Parts: sequence; C-alpha cells; structure tokens
Amino acid sequence: MNILDTIHTPQDVRVLNRSQLKELAKEIRQTLVNVTAINGGHLASNLGIVELTIALHRVFDSPRDRFIFDVSHQIYTHKLLTGRNDAKFRQIRMSGGYSGFSDPTESEHDAFVAGHAGTALSVALGFAYARDRIGSRKDSHIIAILGDGSLTCGMTLEALNNLVATTKRLIVVVNDNEFSIDKNVGAISVHLNKILISGLYRAVSNTTKKILGDGKFGKAVVRGIRRLKRAIKSIILPTSYFEYYGLRYFGPIDGHDISKLEEILEFCKFAKVPVLIHVKTIKGYGYEDAIHFPEKFHGIEPEQVCDAITSQPNTISYGEILGKEVTKLAQKDKTIIGVVAAMARGSGLSYLRDHCPDQYVDVGIAEEHAVTFSAALAKCGMRPVCAIYSTFLQRAFDQVLHDVCSQNLPVVFCLDRAGIALHDGMTHHGIFDLSYLRLIPNVVILQPKDVQEFVNALHSAFQWQCPVFIRYPKSCKQNVNLNTLGFSQHLPFGKSEKIIEGQRVCFLALGNMVDLANEICQKLKTFGIQGAIVNVIFVKPLDKEILRDIAENYELVVTLEDNVLAGGFGSAILEFYNDNGMKTNVLRYGWPDEFIKHSTSLDALRVKHGLSVANIVEKVLSTLNIHIS
Amino acid sequence: MNILDTIHTPQDVRVLNRSQLKELAKEIRQTLVNVTAINGGHLASNLGIVELTIALHRVFDSPRDRFIFDVSHQIYTHKLLTGRNDAKFRQIRMSGGYSGFSDPTESEHDAFVAGHAGTALSVALGFAYARDRIGSRKDSHIIAILGDGSLTCGMTLEALNNLVATTKRLIVVVNDNEFSIDKNVGAISVHLNKILISGLYRAVSNTTKKILGDGKFGKAVVRGIRRLKRAIKSIILPTSYFEYYGLRYFGPIDGHDISKLEEILEFCKFAKVPVLIHVKTIKGYGYEDAIHFPEKFHGIEPEQVCDAITSQPNTISYGEILGKEVTKLAQKDKTIIGVVAAMARGSGLSYLRDHCPDQYVDVGIAEEHAVTFSAALAKCGMRPVCAIYSTFLQRAFDQVLHDVCSQNLPVVFCLDRAGIALHDGMTHHGIFDLSYLRLIPNVVILQPKDVQEFVNALHSAFQWQCPVFIRYPKSCKQNVNLNTLGFSQHLPFGKSEKIIEGQRVCFLALGNMVDLANEICQKLKTFGIQGAIVNVIFVKPLDKEILRDIAENYELVVTLEDNVLAGGFGSAILEFYNDNGMKTNVLRYGWPDEFIKHSTSLDALRVKHGLSVANIVEKVLSTLNIHIS
Repeated sequence: MNILDTIHTPQDVRVLNRSQLKELAKEIRQTLVNVTAINGGHLASNLGIVELTIALHRVFDSPRDRFIFDVSHQIYTHKLLTGRNDAKFRQIRMSGGYSGFSDPTESEHDAFVAGHAGTALSVALGFAYARDRIGSRKDSHIIAILGDGSLTCGMTLEALNNLVATTKRLIVVVNDNEFSIDKNVGAISVHLNKILISGLYRAVSNTTKKILGDGKFGKAVVRGIRRLKRAIKSIILPTSYFEYYGLRYFGPIDGHDISKLEEILEFCKFAKVPVLIHVKTIKGYGYEDAIHFPEKFHGIEPEQVCDAITSQPNTISYGEILGKEVTKLAQKDKTIIGVVAAMARGSGLSYLRDHCPDQYVDVGIAEEHAVTFSAALAKCGMRPVCAIYSTFLQRAFDQVLHDVCSQNLPVVFCLDRAGIALHDGMTHHGIFDLSYLRLIPNVVILQPKDVQEFVNALHSAFQWQCPVFIRYPKSCKQNVNLNTLGFSQHLPFGKSEKIIEGQRVCFLALGNMVDLANEICQKLKTFGIQGAIVNVIFVKPLDKEILRDIAENYELVVTLEDNVLAGGFGSAILEFYNDNGMKTNVLRYGWPDEFIKHSTSLDALRVKHGLSVANIVEKVLSTLNIHIS
Repeated sequence: MNILDTIHTPQDVRVLNRSQLKELAKEIRQTLVNVTAINGGHLASNLGIVELTIALHRVFDSPRDRFIFDVSHQIYTHKLLTGRNDAKFRQIRMSGGYSGFSDPTESEHDAFVAGHAGTALSVALGFAYARDRIGSRKDSHIIAILGDGSLTCGMTLEALNNLVATTKRLIVVVNDNEFSIDKNVGAISVHLNKILISGLYRAVSNTTKKILGDGKFGKAVVRGIRRLKRAIKSIILPTSYFEYYGLRYFGPIDGHDISKLEEILEFCKFAKVPVLIHVKTIKGYGYEDAIHFPEKFHGIEPEQVCDAITSQPNTISYGEILGKEVTKLAQKDKTIIGVVAAMARGSGLSYLRDHCPDQYVDVGIAEEHAVTFSAALAKCGMRPVCAIYSTFLQRAFDQVLHDVCSQNLPVVFCLDRAGIALHDGMTHHGIFDLSYLRLIPNVVILQPKDVQEFVNALHSAFQWQCPVFIRYPKSCKQNVNLNTLGFSQHLPFGKSEKIIEGQRVCFLALGNMVDLANEICQKLKTFGIQGAIVNVIFVKPLDKEILRDIAENYELVVTLEDNVLAGGFGSAILEFYNDNGMKTNVLRYGWPDEFIKHSTSLDALRVKHGLSVANIVEKVLSTLNIHIS
C-alpha cells in the first residue's frame, strides 16, 4: 500500500516523517499526471503546489482553519488530502466525478466556490471579519492562497486596500510561479529600482552632508552610505508594496521545501498583524519524473495537458482561427490591435503577439481595464479586438455598458467558450452573455454557425461602427481545409440565413445549434415533416424581415440557443413577436434557470435538460398535433 | 463685464494676469453657487477644483491635449472655461441644459464619457497608447484627473499596474480632498510607518556595523544614520506606493495656489516617465465667500446642495428608511451587518454607522470587493445587507453571479436609485438591473410600491435563505408619519397583490409604476373601463397563480416597469405566458433600447418615450377596440 492511500483526513498527513512526505509528494504527482492524462485539467499549476498544500495541511487544521484557494484550479492536492482520493477523483472534471475547482457541496474542506480569479482575498476578509465579530469558527486561521496573476486583478487590490481595516489576523500566501509577476509587476519593479534607489541615494547623501558636514568624515560616511545602497534596496524593494497595505512580508520561500514552508507557516500562526508569505514555485515541478505515459504526453508541456486532452479529434479551434485572421487583418491595418486579459494562448491571440508584437497588449488578469482601455483606443481611431472568454467578460459588464456602449464605440469583442464549458463546470459556462449583453443599447451580437462564417463575421465586424460581440464555443466539429480557409464575403448586417425551407415548423438556430436543428429535422422527416432552418447569426439586431416572413408561413417557431432561457435569444424573439402584435407559437430551447455542474458530455447535459433531439422532436410533433403511433 | 464672460476658449484664460486669475476663480465660484442653488449638483467637489482646472487650462492646450476627468462630477469649471458659459450652463443637469458630467457630444473638450468611478486611468492609457502607436493627436499631453476615492477602486489599480508598460508619457493628477484617502489608504500608511521604518532602521544599522565595524567610527555613523531616519522616511513613505508602479511622484501641492500648480504642471510636461501629481484641495473651498443665497443655503453644507435641491418636498427618502430599519434589526441581531461602497450617506446606512458602528463596513469605492466580502459573511452565518445603487451594482455583476448566487447565499442587496435618475443622466440611470439580475439563477428580485411595503420587504428579506435584491427609487411621494412607520407584516414569498379588480384589462405594475397604473385607470374609467391593477412586488420568482388567473379573466395584460424593455420584467411575463402555452395579449411599457440623457422631469421623459398616461390609455383602448369619438 502506498502512502497516499493511507491518507483519509489531513490528520493522517501530520504523522508522516520527512522521508514519507517526500514519497507522498511523489505519489501525488504520479496521481495528478495519471488522472489528467485521462481527464485533462490544470496539470502544471497542480504539480507546482504539491509541497505547499502538504505543508498547509500539516500546519493548519482544516476544516476548522479555512483555506481559500483563488481561482482554485490548483486544488487537486487539497482534494487528495481531504478524503477525496477515491473513484470520484479518478473521474475529476467528468460526469459524476469531483469538480476541478473548489466545491463546498463536495467537502467541508472546500470553503467557498471559486473559478474566476481575484476573489480569494475578499472571501478571506469576509471569513476573518465573521470570525472576529461573531465568533464564526473562533480562533480559526484563515489562509488565502493566490497566484501571482491574481495580483493584477482589480478586486484583489480592492480587498488588499481593505485588509488591515478588516482584520489583524489573516495569512496570505502568494504562490509565485514566475508567470504573471515577471511579465507585469516585475517589469515595473525593475524600472522602479532605478528611480527609487537613485532618488533615495541622492537624498540620503545630501542629508548626510547637511548633518555631518562636507569634510573628510562626512565624505567617508557618504562613501559608506553608497555601499549601503544594495542593502537598503534589498530591504525596501521586495517588501514595500505589501507593507504599504499593512501586511508583514515574508519571503521569498522555496515552495518545494516542505520543512521550510512549515517553519514559516508555524511562525505566521502567531503573527499579530496580517502576513503575506511569498512562495516561489515552479509550474509543472516534477513533471518529468512523474510521466509514465510517454505515448500520451510526448512533446506536451504540462500546461498544455488540459487543452491536449479536452480537444476532440476532427475539431477546429475558433481561437486558432481568430489568431490567424486577426493577424492577417492587422498586417494590413496598423490601427488594429489585439487586447487580452492574461489569455494569450487560450484566446488564440498569441499568434498575433508572435507576428505583430506591436499590435498586441496583454493587460494581465484585468478584464475591467482591458475593456475600458479598448474603448479609449476605439475613441482614438484604433480598431481594438478584445478577446475575453464569455464567462470572464461578466467581470467587465459595467465597462462594456458605461464605457464602450454608451458612446457606441467600435470595439470588436471575441467571446470564446460561449455556451456550456463542460469539464470546467459551473463557474465557467458561457451561458449568460446573450442575456447580459442584449439588454445594452447599441450592441451588435452575433454567433456564426461554423468557422467559415466566423472568419467572415470577424472581417465584417471591422466594417461596422459600433460595438460588436462575436460569441463562439471553443471548437467546432467540421472538416475544413485550414490552408484554404479565409475571408470570402462580408456578412450582410443584421441578416439571418435561411438554410432549408420547410413546412409547418421553423427552427431559429443560433451558432452551433444549427447542427442540432439539422439533426432534429432529419428525425422529423421520418414523420413526414420537413422543418425549415434559419441560421440566425444576429441576436441583435434581429432580422425583422425574416421573422415576419416566418410568422406568416409557419405554424410553429422553435428557438435553439446555447444560453440561459431567461432573457436570452428566445426571449428576444418573444419580445419581437409580442411587440409587433404577432401571435406566433414559439417553443424556446436553451439552458434552464439553475447553475449547471461540470460534465463530460454535452449530449448528456442536453438530455438532462430537455434539449435532446428526441425530446424536441416529441414536443414539436405534439404541438403540431401529430401523434406518433 | 466680468472676466468669466470674456472667456470663450481656454486661450482666453492664458492671457490673464495673476490678479485677474484670482478674480476669475471668484467669479467661477459665484457662478457654481448660483447655478447649483437652482439646479442642484455636486457643488463641494466643483468648488474644490476651480484653481486646478484653471491651471490645467493655462498649462495645457485642450482639446489637443486631453483631460480625462474621473467620475467627472467635478467638471463644471472645465465646462465654463471651454466655451460653455452660456444659457445651457445655467440649465446644467436640467432638460436642454448641459450634462453634469463629461459629455463628448457637447464639446470636443470633453474627451470621454464618465460617471462611474475608476475609469480615468484606463481611458488615459488607451489615449496614450493610440498617441504613441498610431500618432493620434501626436505630441499631445494626456492628463488623468482623479479623486483620492478612485484609488480604492479596482479598475484604477488594474490600470496603474499596466501604466508603465503602456506609455512613458502620462500625467496623473490626484485631487486629494482628504476625504477617502484619510479613511482608507491613510490608515494603512500610519500603520506602515512603524513597520517599515523600524525594519529599515534595524537593517541599516546592522549593515552599517558590518561594513564600518563596531568601533568608534562605526558607532558615529550609526548615530548619524539614526538621525537620517526622518529624512529617509519623508522620502520613501509618501512616494513608495506610486513609485512602485513606476510613476514619478510630486507633491503634495496646494491645490488652491494657481502659480504653484502651473509651475509643477509645466515641469511635468517634459517628464520622460509617467508622473503623478498629488494635489491637496479642500472640498467646498470658498463656499462661504460665494454664498449670496443665505435663504437657500442656510445651514446646508456644500456637499448637501445636490440632495437639498433635488429632493422634492413631501417625499420620503428610501435611504433614510433603510438606515433606520436596518438599525432596528441590527440592534436585535448581531449577525446583521451593513456593507456600503463609499455611499454611507447616499445609501442611508450612515444611520447604522452612527448607531451600530460595529455592524457597519464601508469598503470605499470598491463594489466588487463589497459584494464578494458580503458573500463570505453570509457563508459564515452573518446577514449582510449590501447597499449599492442600481447603476453601481453593474460594476459587481460577476461577483453577484459567481460568488453570491452560485452558492445561493443570503445577502440582502438594497438597490437605491433604481429607475430613471433624472438630473444625473445617462451614466446613472438604474434601468438595467431587472434585466441583468433576472438572468441569474437563485435570485429573488422585488420592488415595493411604497415605503411601508419597503419596510416589510426588508424585514422579510432577512427571513429568506437566498440572495434578495430590493430595488427602489431615491424617494417616494407620499404622506406617511415617519414616527409610526415600522414593520407591520412579512411579505408572502413570491406573492403579488391585487389592488383593484376590474374588467378586460389588467395592469401588472412594478413599484412606483403602481401610481402610474392608478392614474391610467382613473382615465380609463372615463371611457367606461375599470382596469384591474396588480402590485407585482416580485419580479423573480413570479406569482404564477395570479398570472394564470389574470390570463383567464382579462383580454389584455399591460406590464409597467421602470427598467429597459429588453430582458426586463415584461419580458419575464412574456416568457411565462409563452412557456406555459398561454396566448395572452400583453402590452409592455418600460424604457426603450437607447441611452437616455439627463432630464428635469420624469413626466417629460415618459411623454417622450411613450410612457405617458395619455399614450398608454390610447393604446389600451385601441387594443380593446374601443374607439374614442
């Protein structure tokens, strides 16, 4: 029996000796690699935080003490150490398995839901406040664990600014894997060195001269002071930022040394002020040692595991197309610029970065800034393309409304991962955007049915003088020759496309739901009905002409969307028909009014929520009074 | 002729001598007081920034150079100096007059729309980037002017973090009126002094000993260094925060000394790095000298001018009721806690602060943190009441969805200023919340028709174990004895109230629209129709029973809401009837799909947008085939 299998509660971790801990870390890594080889998932970040998680569970007493993982994609080791090293872990991110994120419904060791970056400090402050004021888990320790990337996130900084005023007892662990900090904050730090040190040095020298005089003694002191520069620098610089906010800073600590981590965490237990522990870890640490699946992982970096596994064969990634097409456009038009919020590769715009580095800005995990920055670029005559996942654009809802749309500024928004996100689950589904965008004046919202239409939509969007939101899923099943794929024609503004004429029933299908409509119509044919299909493309503005035509010629209209029903596309159709006094029979299909958990299969989710072909066919037939014998 | 009347462009300001400038400032103050005495508006902040605005226009060349005012309620002097000292300025915030905020459609001197806090730095970075990359207004200076309060705002900090990476030429003016900085950031700074200085001193002493030895000479140096502490402190401390982000810091500067301001601004024009100028101003500066309306302003602080003027007589402020009722509840239940984002007085929770200071948290202008912090409090068994204006809750849309609602946490949200905001205009209307909240699973949304129902709703909300959103306008016309007003009974969950039975037509009226429904029904009576009125109260969940009943008994249902029609309450009614296969005739009334400018009169706006009594009566009659002779 290996050691990991003896761990049923965090207490079991506390009795292990040093060599057993080393072995435990190794076994955990092997488990992480094995599981993600099958299920996908964030392997690199989880490999990086193994020792830190072990140390946290040895020093603190979860669930009395609370760990708040920011984003929480790095929570796998925590799950393994808190009684979840079981069959459901083998099924992590799959139907019936554990969530790939923190999920309080799974275990009381998961303190809070997380999925979007930057929430951990606010949550930790709430927990600390409740502890200090009403004695919720009195005397407990609260530990927020965040990546360096979350330090670029506005809401982390809002919480940081409120930290000392809220509690005197809080431990913040910054897991710095040299990813974001180097890129964003680090650059500032380097630049700052010069300003701060030179300014400080001049000032100190001058003051010394004033105090000690200009003679030999004074000069010696000045020389001495000059030699102090490096010492002063090392004291002030790495700490000043967090200490400005009143946190005591410790670090950097080697995040792969369990003993050292335990030592500093033990020490911080008794701090009378909030502390920040700066832990340096290496993403993907121990990966090579743990690979026993060379055939699966050959040539794949641990960061890429998630993408590699969850990408289906014979699919095309919309992001990849986006990167290439924006690059083509950008090479011809210097005013075009890509703006991303820490999703270079995920959005596909890393291709633009590599080919037109001057026309690419990554602002870090800072969706709010990304959107208003894009608005300002558009105001100055540039043509920004702002690529943010549907779910993360929620973070910038106010900026979309207040900064972009109120001025009708031509920003092209590319909303990847629209629709059900499957494995990433509840916090990542992009199923709200049609509803939260449609309510805003001036927006144009569209969803292409395939990559060719996507390319045409993208090129067309730059022709329109208004905010345009193009939504699309991660990938698209289809056989397309990527070498010949390219812009073919502009989309007529606000026009839908009639794909098949039919009788009695017309399907208004949005984006990837056109495929579903085709399947439904195939099935309907067996009952003697040829359904019509309209590829909607535009959710706003609606194609009024085609909608009127359909209302006149069909008994039944069926809307199909990969969005919640509340306030979504189908709702817009109801508004249109109602407000124009048309008594059209409408059946609406989309996601229900509930939070949907992760799942392996879109088909399974569709069955569960009444979106299966069979279910829709049955409902259409009964509505048309066709009775199946 | 006075001096202000000779100013038609900023160039006219540049030729004035020192004594003329003094006189100009005086005349501007007089104008500000005169105008706000009639129209309301943000008097105090505008009085505070007169000299700074004059200095900016003397040193820089607007509109070639761009001023980006954050929030922009302090923009009045800028308007006066840029050709807008005219009749429309006398009508500022009124129908036909200028906006009380930055409005590019008014003048090219207004660079960007603003109304919500924290956008200026992102906008300025976009402008600077476009200038540096594509030569948009090449060589121009870009100056962001923000209040100290905006430094607590996440998106300001996101932009700050991106600043140096984006441009080397940007001027940031922080107008510090000792309001927010003292409360939030200042407290940290004081605390920090101790940590940083003591740490620094120890380290410097030790290093000196190492370098210079422990003898007499070394000790003398240590003594000298000790005397340097204060000098070092004064250099590092006030500047370290901004210099961390790579800005060169200047200040603090007396914000009422035009010469000094011009000097530093001139100097900063040639800076090779981004600079931050810290200007200290006094809110309401020069108010006493400028008052010539003692009968109007007697006993009113300049900060209160806006409220004093725009509050109608015989109205009751919902905020005032909220403060008193939450205090009553909090005194009985220690788990109840008020959370506001820099709107203590505006939200009414200043009353709670004054009576139960331990059950009140003001997080500063940080709506995102406020919401997730509240979610965590609720998770720990507290009962937070999070009071944020409808328009500002847009900033925390993702936090509402991802942190509160995904876990169905019982946070009571109080959304003041729901509906048309009138004078504050486009950026402040609370007319989107029904649409952007209704799409989220687990939410309960309600709007009481009057203050008595509001009190009952508030008490009821604490009984329900889910997120509750109570929306209401600023005030309510009604005669109520505030001394006897109090909780009378719990609202039945999800139940609407039939106010009047009737025939043929039923009005589903939400909140303050019940009054409109009453007026409409009065008018309809003259045509022999008694309309029924339902006080809807709950937008989610809908009262299905009453909706079915109405569909069966009335020919026509009319929805009335103070929200946009797209995705709003009426849309929910359409969804309900459609999805239940009920072919109900519905007329929807609400705000159209466009951004609505400021206005003096709600009635005028209603007339303009088809929401007048006459228009609705006419439409109802024609729908019912009743022809007016």
